[in-house]
Amino acid sequence: MRKELLEDIGEKELINRLGKFMPKDQTSDDCALIKTKNENLLINNDSLVENVHFDDITICPQDLGWKAVVSNISDLVSSGSKKTIGITISLILPEKTEWVWVEELYKGINKALKKYGGIILGGDCSKGNQKTISITALGIQGELKLSRNACSPGEIILTTGIHGLSKLGFMILNKNNFDNDIPLNKRLIKKSIEHFSRPKIYPHFLINLLKTRSNKKITRIGCTDSSDGLFQAVQDLAIASNCKAIMNYEKIPKDKDWPKGDKWDEYYFFGGEDYKLVFSLPKKWARKFSKLDRNVTEIGFFIKGDPSIEFKNKENNKLLKNTPFKHF
Amino acid sequence: MRKELLEDIGEKELINRLGKFMPKDQTSDDCALIKTKNENLLINNDSLVENVHFDDITICPQDLGWKAVVSNISDLVSSGSKKTIGITISLILPEKTEWVWVEELYKGINKALKKYGGIILGGDCSKGNQKTISITALGIQGELKLSRNACSPGEIILTTGIHGLSKLGFMILNKNNFDNDIPLNKRLIKKSIEHFSRPKIYPHFLINLLKTRSNKKITRIGCTDSSDGLFQAVQDLAIASNCKAIMNYEKIPKDKDWPKGDKWDEYYFFGGEDYKLVFSLPKKWARKFSKLDRNVTEIGFFIKGDPSIEFKNKENNKLLKNTPFKHF
Repeated sequence: MRKELLEDIGEKELINRLGKFMPKDQTSDDCALIKTKNENLLINNDSLVENVHFDDITICPQDLGWKAVVSNISDLVSSGSKKTIGITISLILPEKTEWVWVEELYKGINKALKKYGGIILGGDCSKGNQKTISITALGIQGELKLSRNACSPGEIILTTGIHGLSKLGFMILNKNNFDNDIPLNKRLIKKSIEHFSRPKIYPHFLINLLKTRSNKKITRIGCTDSSDGLFQAVQDLAIASNCKAIMNYEKIPKDKDWPKGDKWDEYYFFGGEDYKLVFSLPKKWARKFSKLDRNVTEIGFFIKGDPSIEFKNKENNKLLKNTPFKHF
Repeated sequence: MRKELLEDIGEKELINRLGKFMPKDQTSDDCALIKTKNENLLINNDSLVENVHFDDITICPQDLGWKAVVSNISDLVSSGSKKTIGITISLILPEKTEWVWVEELYKGINKALKKYGGIILGGDCSKGNQKTISITALGIQGELKLSRNACSPGEIILTTGIHGLSKLGFMILNKNNFDNDIPLNKRLIKKSIEHFSRPKIYPHFLINLLKTRSNKKITRIGCTDSSDGLFQAVQDLAIASNCKAIMNYEKIPKDKDWPKGDKWDEYYFFGGEDYKLVFSLPKKWARKFSKLDRNVTEIGFFIKGDPSIEFKNKENNKLLKNTPFKHF
């Protein structure tokens, strides 16, 4: 049987069906209502375009829905959001898209919202020749202000987890050739695909930051997420905060089966889509945080100097010659 | 000289340049901060896709930017927004797009924001093969709740202006053949093109509603905008409010030079993109409002019955057989 296509459904019925994924009080009108209780909000927008950010070969619509939500909530968390209010979803889809594709996408979206909080506030769908998912997410600002430009010389650079896995997962699913003489460990293959398809975020980041803060006068933290790769994240912090990052190659946490070699370092540093947090804290705070959560690791420090990245061991600097991932 | 293309600029520099259109405190981070003072917010999202909603022949990028903002603010106003906070802009553009196109688009966006209020809260740009402008707008909810499902039998249906002009302007610019034996009036041609290229909204709608309200117990009003045409607006109200609309053909305001005939009625009722408000009020309130503002006209009333539209003079019902504008 031929599967039902969007062009068979028609615009009104399509909007009606999309409405069923939303809470009842959010449907029928052009605008969604957001009730705020004297709290400041954070807003973020992220678009995923077919054959630029994703393709039908490497990712199924349910995983894509999950990832679209995670990438937006990750941005909110990295800016100090203490709670996700919700998201609006703007879809652009070809007429020949199967309805089941949309349904699966929304299943993934709702699974991620169930896991990390937030509701669908609104959604619309337009015709176009390239699938596009554009999500706008709203969160409530917590007690600390997190931004890229708040790092200071002397602070320790930390990250909340291992990088490169998402990139490896992508390459495995895409059947890319990657630099490897020996067969990859099965556990690492499974873990990498999981990281690519269903990335996790660190929702308790803000709570743990507050838990380990000893000096309550500090309310601003330099932070970003590693959606475009660890290198890009550190570089963004260095540029926005106008200081120099010194990275400690030996301390950077890797999966225990992660192969050695320049290519593998490249996958690690420039991979992207790992959605870990990269941030800097005063020494004492950094020690307390990495003691509280063993997945949080000190990977370097900031010093005065031109906005740039260097490794503590100069031999590792050859790594930095690679160009990070580009969309244009 | 070859004009500068997006692919010449590169992603980082592009984001940097887009940042220059924003207020200074809104740049460098992934999220924008919205300060709220214990007020409820309204959020709306609208996407414009090339060759679906616009094309390079009929509209220049500056007008397109203006229209993208206006269509979003119109939705906010129709939901009872008293003030636009700002917008986030998500662009998808082919690599071969000229930078000057983006610049012109943002000029139009900023002109509309200057006129109707609001700032650019954030923006991002991705590569894609079809130009797409997706805007999310945030407004502050005013004293009245405006929604499609709040119309009641016995209420008068009103609209804030003339319809069909935008459609006519589109047809003129697109060099479409339209049903006309005699040459069109020059003033009407100019006015129609203006309505299509730089549509205006009615920012004082809420203020005038409150000014003419005598019964302060009424806090909910049935309302929508006519972005998809007058017929669609009335139908949306009737369906959401579960009542029947009786339209008075003779009372519907037309441009004094608008030609007569079935085709012209079709352009009028199904044209779209006029961004007028269509709403219903109790009789007394309706009289007071249309007396305060002569552009606001009573065009019919709601009665109990199946959600549908009928004309008072049954002869006009043949008009309703036409299908409204569809995106899918």
